[in-house]
Amino acid sequence: MNTGELVDLGQQLRVDSVRTSAAAGSGHPTSSMSAADLMAVLLANHLRYDFERPAHPGNDRFVLSKGHASPLLYSAYKAAGAIDDEELLTFRKLGSRLEGHPTPQRLPWVETATGSLGQGLPVGVGIALSGKRLDHADYRVWVLCGDSEMAEGSVWEAAEHAGYEHLDNLTVIVDVNRLGQRGQTRHGHDLDAYARRFRAFDWHTIEIDGHDVDAVDRAYGEALSTKGQPTAIIARTLKGKGVKAVEDREGQHGKPLPEAEEAIAELGGPRDLRVRVQEPPSARALHSAGTGQTELPRYDKGDEVATRNAFGEALAALGTARGDVVALDGEVGDSTRAEFFAKEHPERYFECYIAEQQMVATAVGMAARGWVPFATTFAAFLTRAHDFVRMASVSGSGINLVGSHAGVAIGQDGPSQMGLEDIAMMRAVHGSTVLYPCDANQAARLVAEMAGLEGIRYLRTSRGESKVIYSPDEEFSVGGSKVLRSSDRDRLTVVAAGVTVHEALAAADALAQDGIAVRVIDLYSVKPVDRATLREAAEDTGCLVTVEDHRQEGGIGDAVLDAFCDGRPVPRLVRLAVGTMPGSATPAEELHAAGIDAESVEAAVRMLVEQAIVR
Amino acid sequence: MNTGELVDLGQQLRVDSVRTSAAAGSGHPTSSMSAADLMAVLLANHLRYDFERPAHPGNDRFVLSKGHASPLLYSAYKAAGAIDDEELLTFRKLGSRLEGHPTPQRLPWVETATGSLGQGLPVGVGIALSGKRLDHADYRVWVLCGDSEMAEGSVWEAAEHAGYEHLDNLTVIVDVNRLGQRGQTRHGHDLDAYARRFRAFDWHTIEIDGHDVDAVDRAYGEALSTKGQPTAIIARTLKGKGVKAVEDREGQHGKPLPEAEEAIAELGGPRDLRVRVQEPPSARALHSAGTGQTELPRYDKGDEVATRNAFGEALAALGTARGDVVALDGEVGDSTRAEFFAKEHPERYFECYIAEQQMVATAVGMAARGWVPFATTFAAFLTRAHDFVRMASVSGSGINLVGSHAGVAIGQDGPSQMGLEDIAMMRAVHGSTVLYPCDANQAARLVAEMAGLEGIRYLRTSRGESKVIYSPDEEFSVGGSKVLRSSDRDRLTVVAAGVTVHEALAAADALAQDGIAVRVIDLYSVKPVDRATLREAAEDTGCLVTVEDHRQEGGIGDAVLDAFCDGRPVPRLVRLAVGTMPGSATPAEELHAAGIDAESVEAAVRMLVEQAIVR
Repeated sequence: MNTGELVDLGQQLRVDSVRTSAAAGSGHPTSSMSAADLMAVLLANHLRYDFERPAHPGNDRFVLSKGHASPLLYSAYKAAGAIDDEELLTFRKLGSRLEGHPTPQRLPWVETATGSLGQGLPVGVGIALSGKRLDHADYRVWVLCGDSEMAEGSVWEAAEHAGYEHLDNLTVIVDVNRLGQRGQTRHGHDLDAYARRFRAFDWHTIEIDGHDVDAVDRAYGEALSTKGQPTAIIARTLKGKGVKAVEDREGQHGKPLPEAEEAIAELGGPRDLRVRVQEPPSARALHSAGTGQTELPRYDKGDEVATRNAFGEALAALGTARGDVVALDGEVGDSTRAEFFAKEHPERYFECYIAEQQMVATAVGMAARGWVPFATTFAAFLTRAHDFVRMASVSGSGINLVGSHAGVAIGQDGPSQMGLEDIAMMRAVHGSTVLYPCDANQAARLVAEMAGLEGIRYLRTSRGESKVIYSPDEEFSVGGSKVLRSSDRDRLTVVAAGVTVHEALAAADALAQDGIAVRVIDLYSVKPVDRATLREAAEDTGCLVTVEDHRQEGGIGDAVLDAFCDGRPVPRLVRLAVGTMPGSATPAEELHAAGIDAESVEAAVRMLVEQAIVR
Repeated sequence: MNTGELVDLGQQLRVDSVRTSAAAGSGHPTSSMSAADLMAVLLANHLRYDFERPAHPGNDRFVLSKGHASPLLYSAYKAAGAIDDEELLTFRKLGSRLEGHPTPQRLPWVETATGSLGQGLPVGVGIALSGKRLDHADYRVWVLCGDSEMAEGSVWEAAEHAGYEHLDNLTVIVDVNRLGQRGQTRHGHDLDAYARRFRAFDWHTIEIDGHDVDAVDRAYGEALSTKGQPTAIIARTLKGKGVKAVEDREGQHGKPLPEAEEAIAELGGPRDLRVRVQEPPSARALHSAGTGQTELPRYDKGDEVATRNAFGEALAALGTARGDVVALDGEVGDSTRAEFFAKEHPERYFECYIAEQQMVATAVGMAARGWVPFATTFAAFLTRAHDFVRMASVSGSGINLVGSHAGVAIGQDGPSQMGLEDIAMMRAVHGSTVLYPCDANQAARLVAEMAGLEGIRYLRTSRGESKVIYSPDEEFSVGGSKVLRSSDRDRLTVVAAGVTVHEALAAADALAQDGIAVRVIDLYSVKPVDRATLREAAEDTGCLVTVEDHRQEGGIGDAVLDAFCDGRPVPRLVRLAVGTMPGSATPAEELHAAGIDAESVEAAVRMLVEQAIVR
């Protein structure tokens, strides 16, 4: 498009943003209007995208990091012919695909859900990294950011990653409209404040007037021709541009324009320009195939093996079998054992350094391109990426997260390194799966299982060695459990997972010596839980004692309730969990101090028996 | 101290770091050795600190952001006479104050728990901001960071905040020892890579050889004399410096030296230098007193008021009564209503922009200086700061967090903005309190209550207006609840909180019309829960139906279990919670679609009654 057409298209995007927000009675038209020219030029002259084939491997990828400017995105979809005007006006209504903030769950052209600021660029980095190092395709990734979100550290974590990885297939456009939600941003219209930060992280930068369509056009061209560096286009814009009543004014964030009809007239009235978006180049299919045969590691019963080791070996094996499996780690691959994968499949291994948010965002970006990522760090440090995991779930993203060094069982390093809240965090994620193996064969099997699931899959591994109690041929279904001790004389049931399975077994065996029979369930699938087995145990024994190396809130003790929340009778419940703030000590001392070792389980059971609380 | 003495002190710190790690059989001596000269010069020549009076308002504040280098910190404590050699050798043992990573829960000289990397600088920024804008004291804040942690976005979020606030009382020392846990860092010994990033964020920077004690001494002097900007000292060091077997070598992270005795000899043997640390200047007491009388806002029964509004008004009133209350917000103060406080107490209000991690870290830093911070953003976005909240709990920090816009009840903005996992996150934090008011008077009362508690206090507020159902004179204790409907014919009990209280009441009233009596409990204190009232309801009615605008995992449905996990009989349980991924819709449509509105509660109760599941 030429200058006049581009200006006209920008106005159309503004008009449609005003219209759609007015129809909804809510939304962010002023945040859309500032970026309208930036979007118009991209759509008309630079983006290569087949809206009929959003999965086309050659498509450029566009991420609206400032997700609240969804009216602009949807107006662009209309201009590209992807949606019609009728649908545009369903914005924010029940059942509409056009949500307040865009999500790929509903719209095939959206790469990742946005709306939590500072996440679009990190995910864009993940997609760009896929393009460079996995897909080997020459698609371009365009990310439109707001200026307010530049305050998020995650933006600079992403900038660091992109600069270091020389992602010249990535362009970020910062819509510097000066105004945040509640007033001026830190840097107002000081474009250089942003530019010199990006330059410090080794980006190429271009400062422009974001309403000068020719300047915008040239900037995109310069970004495309810049090699060896990502490009940041810092664009001076005005919020609410084009309508005097709101232009560059405070107090106009996140609401329809006061007088929509007048505003539309001021913008030159409705238009119906149709953009013919450039076709993507032909591109090859994704992924090498792998051998197709997963030869999981096999461990002998009675051996002492850490589940993190089994994870690492299983992941390496999975990577051999499946060409679509990739691994990412937060500079602790020697601890998580992700390094086992790195050694065998270096081309599919991504060192994310100590940057857990970017690690998860990279995984989300790669999953959006069809890869099956496993991202690993200490369980404790996955809390750093909680908001990214939450948004990944909004995206419907399929990623595997693995948290090692779970619980007080790590010992001397102390509470900062102990994952004690991770199960609660991961259980609450919509559509998640939470797995917590207690032995090496189980861990290996679950690694293969989780790779084939939907949504967020979480595997919790342990630092210390534990005895192999299952045969390598034993199978473990997601949603299952294993009954390890059982008789028709069971006085109660101990429900454990991970490290506490071994404590529960030791307690049960000691109690059996005294004639106290106790059922033991290995609840390796914490979400979903094995309702049938838990219900049977409840009926048979009447009391469940849960024991877990986790906080009592949101953990395994709460998870068993998932089997009993439909009005059926609930068994008696006793919960052994980590109720204190641990210090440094040996693993055995930690388990004892937390009241979750064999001795504690045994004491709890004896007390229940002696007090005749259980049958 | 002169050059020779400083060199000698550095060697002593190395020797003691080696000794203490050897005695423990674990620890991070090599990470301590790289920073030993930096620490020696600081301790001997620049730090002003009275170890006998750690609460002295004039004390400088030192934060070991690379918390794993705790052997260095404890060796410095020994050199300063704060601990003796015997205690030094208790490192990492059960009951010792000298944990793997330092925490203020055990050691009075530690400002904040570290060990999750990238958090020391953010908290240091909070302390420095206290010094500048609250304490008006001229203490200096020194933060020692590792180079690996520079990959964390939180470091740059903090750098942005500090540069913008001109915190010239803050000095960060980056110990660039080139080696992370599993190999070389991104930038190795490229000091300028770090320096130019800090400069971009408006810091003064100094690049030095971190083993040249005179250069280190000059750099600290230059930092002290730099006005209007924080200073970053980028120091080139060698990991394991001074012992050939480990110096600058990979694979030596986080383990005792292979041959401790030889290493100690190579370092010149044990020393017993004692540093006379400079006294702090006299400083005035903290905080203005306030009126002492909290005049909470009062709302009339039947009025429609959003709990977020009541929060804002109550916080402003609390700020008038108490001079130690401060407020922080993540650039959504117009939404959270923190702006009500800002208008009345601008000198105690801190705009943190869209930077939730830094906001929580600032609160932690201010709490460390005796202030009572309230930090606010959308409940959904507090997940961004999860790891900071977790570490605040390890610190034993007393902070108030307020999450607005809870649940699907926000309506059109969609899932990215809906706090649906916040209760699970906050419940799992050790020692936390979780409050969720349903009306304005209750919200106001709880604001005053929470300010006086220990640990992490969380208040969940709602966007929409709701009917005032309590008198302004009603009292609400933490750990309590309110029984809103009750009779001796109750067929079951509905447990609700926040927005669902109103839905539960509507359902109960509709059911009453048909002769179905239902008890209704307002469980505004989600943690701790009111065990007595829940148990009484269980005994009286035999069935609890929980209804919550939150995910079913870790929320109110799980919280009621806290009253029944000691082996006593458990009532039947039915859980109504948000089980789907919401889209955009009106608040009423959202509540209905999620199955948590009055109609859904009523239907659930009728089903239970008709199926004769309840009495």
